[in-house]
Amino acid sequence: MIVTCVYVHVKPESIEEFIKASEANHFESVKEPGNIRFDFSQQADDPSRFMLYEAYESEESAAVHKETTHYLRWRETVQDMMAEPRKGVRYNILQPKNRE
Amino acid sequence: MIVTCVYVHVKPESIEEFIKASEANHFESVKEPGNIRFDFSQQADDPSRFMLYEAYESEESAAVHKETTHYLRWRETVQDMMAEPRKGVRYNILQPKNRE
Repeated sequence: MIVTCVYVHVKPESIEEFIKASEANHFESVKEPGNIRFDFSQQADDPSRFMLYEAYESEESAAVHKETTHYLRWRETVQDMMAEPRKGVRYNILQPKNRE
Repeated sequence: MIVTCVYVHVKPESIEEFIKASEANHFESVKEPGNIRFDFSQQADDPSRFMLYEAYESEESAAVHKETTHYLRWRETVQDMMAEPRKGVRYNILQPKNRE
């Protein structure tokens, strides 16, 4: 299992719209067969900072996500909402070993 | 639901022992009634960097975790394995809204 943490810093005036677009992406992403988690969170001490925690069964299923209509729509919709380029960090999940 | 991301940079010679201690912490933490996720991951491009993704139902259940024997044992065991102080970032989970 692999996970990508995507860190997004959003312009203050775009926070509400960003949440709406990312929730829509969440609801479709969790339906993907290879998806394990797609948690969407707001930083507690800074409401303009968000994290997407995207866990997939394999590299292949993570790659498939990037080709979905909902991901591409999200990417286009939020493009001008960001205060700086978003940052993704890739991890290998050591525990749990299996989907739970 | 809230989540704490704990970022740990481990001394190269302590990686194996750190994994062992953190896996033990994972196995006990997921048994806590208020725990939702306790994912333990290794950064893909740097095996000396780790993330603990700890999701709890409430502030209270996250606070209870910090008093458990397994957490206290982990904290003591890994104390000298770190290359720099660990960093925790707190988030509020917007989606999913409920445990799933």
